[in-house]
Amino acid sequence: MRILLVGAGGVGDAIAKIAARRDFFELMVVSDYDLSRAERTIAWIVAKHGEQGGRFVAARIDASDPDNVAAVAREHAATHVMNAVEPKFVPTIFAGALAAGADYLDMAMSLSEPHPENPYSETGVKLGDDQFEQAPDWEKAGRLALVGMGVEPGLSDVFARYAIDELFSSVDELGTRDGANLVVHDEAGNEIFAPSFSIWTTIEECLNPPVIWEKDAGWYTTEPFSEPETFVFPEGIGAVECVNVEHEEVLLMPRWLDAKRVTFKYGLGDEFIGVLKTLHMLHLDSVAPLRVRSANGPVEVAPRDVVAAALPDPATIGPRMTGKTCAGVWVTGTGKDGAPREVYLYHVSDNEWTMAEYESQCVVWQTALNPVIALELLASGVWTGTGVLGPEAFPAGPFLELMAKPVEQGGYGQRWGLEDRLAS
Amino acid sequence: MRILLVGAGGVGDAIAKIAARRDFFELMVVSDYDLSRAERTIAWIVAKHGEQGGRFVAARIDASDPDNVAAVAREHAATHVMNAVEPKFVPTIFAGALAAGADYLDMAMSLSEPHPENPYSETGVKLGDDQFEQAPDWEKAGRLALVGMGVEPGLSDVFARYAIDELFSSVDELGTRDGANLVVHDEAGNEIFAPSFSIWTTIEECLNPPVIWEKDAGWYTTEPFSEPETFVFPEGIGAVECVNVEHEEVLLMPRWLDAKRVTFKYGLGDEFIGVLKTLHMLHLDSVAPLRVRSANGPVEVAPRDVVAAALPDPATIGPRMTGKTCAGVWVTGTGKDGAPREVYLYHVSDNEWTMAEYESQCVVWQTALNPVIALELLASGVWTGTGVLGPEAFPAGPFLELMAKPVEQGGYGQRWGLEDRLAS
Repeated sequence: MRILLVGAGGVGDAIAKIAARRDFFELMVVSDYDLSRAERTIAWIVAKHGEQGGRFVAARIDASDPDNVAAVAREHAATHVMNAVEPKFVPTIFAGALAAGADYLDMAMSLSEPHPENPYSETGVKLGDDQFEQAPDWEKAGRLALVGMGVEPGLSDVFARYAIDELFSSVDELGTRDGANLVVHDEAGNEIFAPSFSIWTTIEECLNPPVIWEKDAGWYTTEPFSEPETFVFPEGIGAVECVNVEHEEVLLMPRWLDAKRVTFKYGLGDEFIGVLKTLHMLHLDSVAPLRVRSANGPVEVAPRDVVAAALPDPATIGPRMTGKTCAGVWVTGTGKDGAPREVYLYHVSDNEWTMAEYESQCVVWQTALNPVIALELLASGVWTGTGVLGPEAFPAGPFLELMAKPVEQGGYGQRWGLEDRLAS
Repeated sequence: MRILLVGAGGVGDAIAKIAARRDFFELMVVSDYDLSRAERTIAWIVAKHGEQGGRFVAARIDASDPDNVAAVAREHAATHVMNAVEPKFVPTIFAGALAAGADYLDMAMSLSEPHPENPYSETGVKLGDDQFEQAPDWEKAGRLALVGMGVEPGLSDVFARYAIDELFSSVDELGTRDGANLVVHDEAGNEIFAPSFSIWTTIEECLNPPVIWEKDAGWYTTEPFSEPETFVFPEGIGAVECVNVEHEEVLLMPRWLDAKRVTFKYGLGDEFIGVLKTLHMLHLDSVAPLRVRSANGPVEVAPRDVVAAALPDPATIGPRMTGKTCAGVWVTGTGKDGAPREVYLYHVSDNEWTMAEYESQCVVWQTALNPVIALELLASGVWTGTGVLGPEAFPAGPFLELMAKPVEQGGYGQRWGLEDRLAS
């Protein structure tokens, strides 16, 4: 396996670092628009792992140009293109990979567009629609696009498949629930506002109309921040206010899994919801370029890019962050024994540990872990497929097994949890 | 009198329109960085007032360049330079006017800089310090700089002088209080967030440490939004939550007027305070240029300029706004008769009226009214002086009389109010 990793930002950097400890691939090209970022990642790997670093090469790439993506993939005879940049570049990297005859993986799908008349009740262009429309081309070419293969979407979809296969005879709701107790401090020790994931993507997710799937109704949307719910997360994280958010799981799971309802709720907390509402009210969430004065005359910038630039880079806040983040799926329905069952399947990532082991903050690292496991399953032939497929299209058992197996036995040593919530 | 008006934004436009109905001056040069804005203002005047428009000429000006300001002033033999742009251009226009041998007026003073160590208890560079330091140059040149001559500062200072001269034997507090009940709707009739005054200046005012003056302590600062107080405004506006805000009155009044304490509180309301706190938390109030990606490669923009560009232009919201704004001074102390007295001196501007009469929204129009009255008093020789002087350095009676006198008797027909708050 020869992997072209597109993007050496927080998640791309962590993917390379996690992969450096595994031997399932021959080459990883770490590419970025800014070559120095790719070189920095590789320098870290060389310093930490010595000769393992020989499998990594740096390259410059323009993710917005499918021809350039294809050219870099061909130059290095890439068998797999791993997209680790913002979702707005999905269409170009997706096209570049297919043109180069490579398989493709991403962690977020092509973007949605709200319904022009009824944005808060009907879907318009859905997340991933653009990619699924091209599924016949991928099938025809005999190539695989494994989409939404981060932590959420990604691990959440694997958990859902596992619940359907192993734990339930019928499912009422597949409800992805994400929450954390992360706190960031400045140099002086004061708590500061510093989102742990790309604010650009967070705004996209949180201000777009949330999408819900129901067996009888299909996909429909609601107002942002709808159906607030207090969800209790495990391992000391505790109760966090969660609200509906547009997310890939809701678009992916119903395509392969049988459930009455599929939802995604994000534990944003009150302060963050307030910030997002204010950004929206002031039109600072907009991606439409705006004419703004500057020392060099008027320039055109998207307000959302300015918001992202004004906040600390999520990839850099790790050293000043404490706490844990939890990703998982809350499944309700009827167990294999015919009795009501309610289960939360989850994975917790502790910032102290990810920083010490990988110099990568925990939300970013948790996202990066899963595509590496998926690549390993594809390399070994345990996972196979063609077309445009979500993580739940593949058997979940081998994934969770490889993930949990101790490192000294060839696994990733990442424990995942199962809470039976009706048991107490 | 030959006036060079610098800036044809909302306030500059309204100054020209108000002046067009008066005959105290010979020429007004309406200048702007964007010549078309100046031409638009003059076109409105010509359309409305016919041959009165002959006294107005448009010019292009670079307010950031003192040499250019002086050159435009000399070219038109300006006797007075009227600064109607953002306060960040005060130093350059101030210098350009003096160089051209013209008198100078503004409505906001040179900007402050927080105390480097104790920003929330001690003053650093105060509002207007830069201008007052240059007072000897103005005195030597025999020229007048009348600073802070809008509505607040401006009319508020005139009210304070009036209270000291006519109503009180001793004053405990000169407390400028500003509040409104303005609401803006979008085309569909939904209430929207649209500040009625430059958000750039509002952020500057509201997030800088508020300054307070006390006879025993001199000038000192507090945390932003300190000492919240519900103030009841007249003419149906009602109770509004007011907080301390950095404002010129506090720096001006104590230089000429005798009081125990001088404050400024702004009726921001809860929603607006929340917005400002969020902008600050996200560093979007910053004026330091930030590197931001754009379609044409990285550019450098100040986040605060982006916030301003993303909001509706305050000069354009008039047609969709309803309500009134009130500016005034709350004076407490001992009356001329030796009894305790508490007075609110105020002027209310109604958006419906200002839009119908001047196509100018009420906050902008109210700001513009006062420098025109001041210019008329200077033209007639009722107000005279040299050096750097605030509005309270001049007799208040003639100003308030000219302002209130009916239009058909040669006045401005703008009623002002006096509420005796201990009388009830």
